Amino acid sequence: MSVADLNGLPIRDELRGMSPYGAPQLAVSVRLNTNENSYPLPDEVVTAVAKALAVAVRDVNRYPDRDAVALRAGLAGYLGHGLDVSRIWAANGSNEVQQQLLQAFGGPGRSALGFTPAYSMHPLLATATGTRWIDGKRDADFGLKAGDVAAQIREHRPDVVFLCSPNNPTGTALPLDVVSAALDTAPGMVVVDEAYAEFSRPGTPSALDLLPGHQRLVVTRTMSKAFALAGVRLGYLAADPAVVDAVQLVRLPYHLSALTQAAGQAALEHAEVLLRTVEAVKEQRDRIVATLRAYGLTVADSDANFVLFGEFRDQKAVWQALLTRDVLVRDVGLRGWLRVTAGTPAETDAFLAAMKELV
Amino acid sequence: MSVADLNGLPIRDELRGMSPYGAPQLAVSVRLNTNENSYPLPDEVVTAVAKALAVAVRDVNRYPDRDAVALRAGLAGYLGHGLDVSRIWAANGSNEVQQQLLQAFGGPGRSALGFTPAYSMHPLLATATGTRWIDGKRDADFGLKAGDVAAQIREHRPDVVFLCSPNNPTGTALPLDVVSAALDTAPGMVVVDEAYAEFSRPGTPSALDLLPGHQRLVVTRTMSKAFALAGVRLGYLAADPAVVDAVQLVRLPYHLSALTQAAGQAALEHAEVLLRTVEAVKEQRDRIVATLRAYGLTVADSDANFVLFGEFRDQKAVWQALLTRDVLVRDVGLRGWLRVTAGTPAETDAFLAAMKELV
Repeated sequence: MSVADLNGLPIRDELRGMSPYGAPQLAVSVRLNTNENSYPLPDEVVTAVAKALAVAVRDVNRYPDRDAVALRAGLAGYLGHGLDVSRIWAANGSNEVQQQLLQAFGGPGRSALGFTPAYSMHPLLATATGTRWIDGKRDADFGLKAGDVAAQIREHRPDVVFLCSPNNPTGTALPLDVVSAALDTAPGMVVVDEAYAEFSRPGTPSALDLLPGHQRLVVTRTMSKAFALAGVRLGYLAADPAVVDAVQLVRLPYHLSALTQAAGQAALEHAEVLLRTVEAVKEQRDRIVATLRAYGLTVADSDANFVLFGEFRDQKAVWQALLTRDVLVRDVGLRGWLRVTAGTPAETDAFLAAMKELV
Repeated sequence: MSVADLNGLPIRDELRGMSPYGAPQLAVSVRLNTNENSYPLPDEVVTAVAKALAVAVRDVNRYPDRDAVALRAGLAGYLGHGLDVSRIWAANGSNEVQQQLLQAFGGPGRSALGFTPAYSMHPLLATATGTRWIDGKRDADFGLKAGDVAAQIREHRPDVVFLCSPNNPTGTALPLDVVSAALDTAPGMVVVDEAYAEFSRPGTPSALDLLPGHQRLVVTRTMSKAFALAGVRLGYLAADPAVVDAVQLVRLPYHLSALTQAAGQAALEHAEVLLRTVEAVKEQRDRIVATLRAYGLTVADSDANFVLFGEFRDQKAVWQALLTRDVLVRDVGLRGWLRVTAGTPAETDAFLAAMKELV
């Protein structure tokens, strides 16, 4: 970024001095900073997806199915809950899904409320769509109770409420009564970001359970994490059919390429094989939580494929010390805390060995 | 679209009553309505792209290169003009490129001027980004003269000017003096949409020639048309490096999938083979122009892979009559006119035979 050059351009005032969002993409052996799934697709899925892509390439001179019907049907089948294609929408990552939701239900003159710390793209998406962002509050231990959520919604009357379960970066899932409290009090839409839902501990409910009878509830999901398809960029939502109609008013035509649609469909046909890594990742996650606690650190309960740990007097120094040991974790900008992705046993070994030296 | 359902949702007022943008996707033998390239990729390119995708699939558990550097380098090499990766940006179709430009340089409190009829997504992208749209005027024969462009820019002082060359839906390229006049008078950015540039008649210049010394000029291109990659969704821009920095402030992180990047790179390595269809398409385009004129119709000069023809008392009736004959063309909402894509010789035969019956 060359700020000098940008000063000569008529960019929007609120963009001046900003830097592009994103974690450093560094060449490090142990990359545990962006909550990717460390397991590449199994060979049989690589073969199936590559085959589907090779077929799709024969027709790429034509535009893709603008409504991605076959893919959405596959996603509905995966989610179950009696969902069908009319209740599913897909886009290039859940970022684009959420951007479309804000274009339809937020935007200039409207507001969105989230509860910081949560997924850091939510406020950026709000800003990018002209939606006023309201930074809601959490307990000191990052918890979120139904009564507090309801009170903050009553105070701010936001057009869109973002909940994140399991929450990123803390890792903990929300009890459903928090979502219900939001639905009961929110004057507008309630978006529950469940990007990491597949990693939840047993018995953790999904907001999908609340969809019947709640036209203003939207649950967003992604194939980037449990499905190990971060590179394919495929996010989706489940909601009332009217919500799906609404985002179609703001989506770019042909937003989802024929390649993305084909890859997503082929992967869904192998969901069972693909999701086998989830249990392996959860084992490492639980091992990280237990080991860091044994090291005397404070660690949030995690229903995700990552762990928030602290507290450090200077988390930047710990981040740098880990990088020196060839381990890349994430400084999420939360003073005193760091976030580490649960990957393979070897990656956990490297991370925990480095931490042992540092504590 | 079920308008009844949508009425129960808190969507933005300006979206009420709207329909999703897009041409009908109908199962018709001769599809000449969305300016696709009718020629599938040659076998050797299918093989190369499929092979590149099969390699990319092995790593899709990781996020893609957020900056798409290798792809952008390939695009720079293709465009020539002394461009390099710092002057190129790519996204999911030129729609997304233009949306990002409006997010950075347009948006609430700002305005964009285009000259109707032109690419119909320009005003929709403006609306979706909260940018006030100003409908500029053309001559009665759809022409656009430097003096008129300058006068309208002086009158409206738009933050973004859209020019379209070759213009869609009329097909005619702009003389460079029109672009120069816009650059000389515009207080903000000038975006020249050259989606169809590769189909221009010999001697037609590109606005790329004007990039040196014009920091506020942006030329957008696409691989959807001449490269026959509509299904891959890959648009790009060439501009000053500061413009590329600016759009990176508003782009969604990892907006361009590993599959899109791999497919684009592989296709660019076979640019020469891929672009062989361009001459074939131009032949059919010129044949359509000549034949329709011989039929006594009025036909705009075309530098694109489509032809605007009229004038009909009722273009909807002609559109329907062609559909009955299994030929799908585009009613672009321009009273008295229709647009037809130039495809294969067989598609031209079918279209012209149907038209012969109708005139």
